[in-house]
Amino acid sequence: MDLKQIAKDTAKMLQSYLTYQAMRTVLAQLHETNPPKAVWLHRFSAESNLQDGEAYLQSLLTVDPDLAFRLMTVRDELVSDVTDYLPEMVREGVQKSNGHLRRQHLERLTQLVLAEEPDRLLESERRSGDHSIDD
Amino acid sequence: MDLKQIAKDTAKMLQSYLTYQAMRTVLAQLHETNPPKAVWLHRFSAESNLQDGEAYLQSLLTVDPDLAFRLMTVRDELVSDVTDYLPEMVREGVQKSNGHLRRQHLERLTQLVLAEEPDRLLESERRSGDHSIDD
Repeated sequence: MDLKQIAKDTAKMLQSYLTYQAMRTVLAQLHETNPPKAVWLHRFSAESNLQDGEAYLQSLLTVDPDLAFRLMTVRDELVSDVTDYLPEMVREGVQKSNGHLRRQHLERLTQLVLAEEPDRLLESERRSGDHSIDD
Repeated sequence: MDLKQIAKDTAKMLQSYLTYQAMRTVLAQLHETNPPKAVWLHRFSAESNLQDGEAYLQSLLTVDPDLAFRLMTVRDELVSDVTDYLPEMVREGVQKSNGHLRRQHLERLTQLVLAEEPDRLLESERRSGDHSIDD
């Protein structure tokens, strides 16, 4: 497992995602203050590759520098206000998800076993091993 | 700007992305230890919606619980080993990106100005405002 590469890829993806969220924030602001500009940004963003936040900002910068700088400022704010909370949120989310998935699996096993002979119960438990028990 | 909602959406997306990275990690392991299973997981993942990590794990759990639990374990490890570094990495990445984009913009302005009359220089500087200066 190449943890360093995974961390790098994840940070890059997160940066692109925050660029997308900055675009959505500016878009919502423009809907209030400058609807034609909002329509323009919506169209530009739909036609651009928002998966790559850097390429997106680069091309926006060539056609509307003011808007690009506004997005960069909002992205900066998002980085300051949001990223510090993410590790704890993701940790909690994954723990919750794992518990939920394990419970679902146990319930399905139980239903299967109720519909089968009792000696199948032992076999199912043996096959699923420790995994089916919350640990 | 609904920061709470943006943080929630970002954490959810990050969780799905780490599920995808866990799948890639297990896939690489299976290529070494059990190539037919690797082919199977590759096919299953291509046909599933990996954008939603939870839905993906849920459907994997119904067809191959052992593999699903293995992915969940790897995802857990990734969360422990990677997420704490992300805030700093993203902060650095965005700072670097903003500096790079500003420099690019300045260079383009300079090239434009060199090709035009000197009085256009003043106009360009006025239009791009403080944005074009690193602050």
